[in-house]
Amino acid sequence: MTKNIKVNAAILIIGNEILSGRTKDTNTSTIALWLNSVGVNVKEVRIVPDIKEDIINSVNLLRKKNDYVFTTGGIGPTHDDITAESISEAFGVKYEIHKEAFKILESYYKPGEFNEGRQKMVWMPSNAKLILNPTSGAPGFSVENVFCLPGVPSILKSMLGGLKNAIAGGKPIISYTISLRTVESEIANSLTEVQNNNKDVDIGSYPFFQAGKLGVSIVIRSEDQAKIDTCNSQILEFVNHKNIEIVERT
Amino acid sequence: MTKNIKVNAAILIIGNEILSGRTKDTNTSTIALWLNSVGVNVKEVRIVPDIKEDIINSVNLLRKKNDYVFTTGGIGPTHDDITAESISEAFGVKYEIHKEAFKILESYYKPGEFNEGRQKMVWMPSNAKLILNPTSGAPGFSVENVFCLPGVPSILKSMLGGLKNAIAGGKPIISYTISLRTVESEIANSLTEVQNNNKDVDIGSYPFFQAGKLGVSIVIRSEDQAKIDTCNSQILEFVNHKNIEIVERT
Repeated sequence: MTKNIKVNAAILIIGNEILSGRTKDTNTSTIALWLNSVGVNVKEVRIVPDIKEDIINSVNLLRKKNDYVFTTGGIGPTHDDITAESISEAFGVKYEIHKEAFKILESYYKPGEFNEGRQKMVWMPSNAKLILNPTSGAPGFSVENVFCLPGVPSILKSMLGGLKNAIAGGKPIISYTISLRTVESEIANSLTEVQNNNKDVDIGSYPFFQAGKLGVSIVIRSEDQAKIDTCNSQILEFVNHKNIEIVERT
Repeated sequence: MTKNIKVNAAILIIGNEILSGRTKDTNTSTIALWLNSVGVNVKEVRIVPDIKEDIINSVNLLRKKNDYVFTTGGIGPTHDDITAESISEAFGVKYEIHKEAFKILESYYKPGEFNEGRQKMVWMPSNAKLILNPTSGAPGFSVENVFCLPGVPSILKSMLGGLKNAIAGGKPIISYTISLRTVESEIANSLTEVQNNNKDVDIGSYPFFQAGKLGVSIVIRSEDQAKIDTCNSQILEFVNHKNIEIVERT
C-alpha cells in the first residue's frame, strides 16, 4: 500500500485451500508486483471460501471501492469451481456458454477430448471478455473492472502479461530497500523523523534473520524517484552517524 | 473453510509489505493449521495496510462476525507499528504502558538497553492480556476475542502454543489428501457425485505440477473421521474404476 497513488486495486483470493492452511498464497505477491509495475497500488486483499454468497458480497463491495479487482481461483472444471457463476450473479447477468472460449478449447483439445467436465470452463458471465491463457488453454475473463484469473500460480503468472492494455495505471511504483545490520529499536526514532519529513512517501521497517544474524530492511516506496532519493540520503545520514553496517541496497 | 464447524475465526494481516508484493504471507497458513488442530475454522482473511482507520474498521467488523480474530504485524518499535494503538481505539480503551509487559522487557534487556524505541512495545490497550514471546521477549496481547501477534513468522510460530488454553475450539479438524495422476476434467463428474452424497464434508480439488507431471490432489476435511473414511472409499471406487494411478495419500 503506497500513499497518494491514484489507481488502486483489490485482490480477492477464492479458495478453501488457503483458508485451511494447506496452501500458502503466492498469487497476491505475483499480482501486486505486476500491478505496481503498471502503476496500480494494491489497497486490500481478501481471502474467502468457495461459498457463492461470500464471493458475490466481496466482489460487489470491492469493485465499487477500487479501480480494479483481481480474483484468483475457482475457474476450473470441478464442483468447487464456482467463480464464474458467482461473478454472473454479482453483476446480475446470465451465466452461459462463451462462444469464443468454446472455440478456443474445442481446438485446444484433441478430437473427442473436449468432454463435459472441460466444457464447464467455457461457462461465463454473458458479457465477459476473455483473458487468454498461454499455458493450459482455458481462458480467464473480465467483466467491467473485475478480472478473474486461475489459482494455479504458474498459469496465473503466464496470463498477466496479456492484461497490460486492459489496465490504465499511473506511473510505475518504485521500491528501494536498504538492509542494515541493526535492530529496529536502534533506528526507530531516526526513521520516524525521516517519515515525518517525507509524509507522502511510504517507508516501512522489517526485521529479518539471515544466516543467524539479525537485521532490518527499510523499504522506501513512491512513484517519484527523486522522493526516494531524498529519503535514501536522509536515512544514510543517520546510518553513517550511528556507524551501522549496510548489508545490501536493492 | 469447513462446513458445519461451529467455532470460527478470521485472520487480519496488517502490513504494507504483503500488499506491495515484497513479502509472501506465510502466517495465514501457520495460524490456520494451528487453529484447525484446536477445532477452530478460519472463515476469512483480510490483508490491510498500515493505516489506522483500515485496521480499526476491519477489527471491529471481524470481531463481531467471528468467535476469534487473529492479527499479525505492526507490534514492533517503529513508526509503522500502529496495531496496539489501533486496537485500543477499536475497543475505545486507553493506549497506555502495560506494567507487566514493562517488567518483562526491563528484565529481558541488559541494564541501559531498554531504550525509548523498545519501550514503545509495552504500550497496549489498557485491559490487554499478554501473549508471551519465548523467542524475542516482546509480548503480543489480546483484548476480548482479538489476539495480536507479531509479523515475523518464526516469532509468531513460537507464540501460538501458549495460546491453547485461551481458545475454546471444537473437535480438531481432520484433513486427508489423495493425490492422483489425472486431470480435473477426468474426475469432475464423479467427484461432484461424492460431494453431493456427503454434503457436510468439505471436498476440494487442486491441480498440481510436480516433477514435470500433472496431477490432482483431492482434499477431504471434516471433524469426523468416519465421514472422511466414507468419502475416501467412494473416491477410491471411481479411481479404481477409471484405473487412475494414486500418487500419494496423506
